[in-house]
Amino acid sequence: MQASDVQWSQTEKKAAQAAFDKAYEREIKALIEEVHERAGRISELDEIWRLHDFLSARRHDIDGKYDYSYSVLIFTFARLVKEGWLHLSELDGLEADKLTKVAALTHM
Amino acid sequence: MQASDVQWSQTEKKAAQAAFDKAYEREIKALIEEVHERAGRISELDEIWRLHDFLSARRHDIDGKYDYSYSVLIFTFARLVKEGWLHLSELDGLEADKLTKVAALTHM
Repeated sequence: MQASDVQWSQTEKKAAQAAFDKAYEREIKALIEEVHERAGRISELDEIWRLHDFLSARRHDIDGKYDYSYSVLIFTFARLVKEGWLHLSELDGLEADKLTKVAALTHM
Repeated sequence: MQASDVQWSQTEKKAAQAAFDKAYEREIKALIEEVHERAGRISELDEIWRLHDFLSARRHDIDGKYDYSYSVLIFTFARLVKEGWLHLSELDGLEADKLTKVAALTHM
């Protein structure tokens, strides 16, 4: 699959950006809630360092995941769908071949 | 000042351990409260990463600071007094020459 050669129409770009933003917003909202919840439970130093480890991993993950380059966007969407941050139906604005690729990748 | 040559009597060791533990307990308690407070205020991703940066710095600081080697204990106590985690009066069980050294170091 040569995702880097895929062309995106203006309409698709708009739909892609909206879906991307929606997934990002959901994941950040969930992260904030988890931080509130984890931090609220802390009563020992070890738990603080566990929160620190958790944040280190999430930061690395989120920094790498939300790459809006068109060359990797098919893969990004597949990952977001797989992780539950996006529904395939929310990518309806994309052309059929892209949707097929995203759907196929979510099964890998 | 050749702190590494300093001898510690059994009585002093007991007093030193108690003071060390007290400072540690206070600092950890304050840290837990600060984490609760900071995390509770979080409503944006940037604030999560600021909490992460804060915890990275505190972890590095605390890991390095609470060194109970007798060779550096005079310096450790001076730092803890300087930072407000310990009162000089709580080191009363130490011999006068050690107290003088700790007090002198807190002014450096």
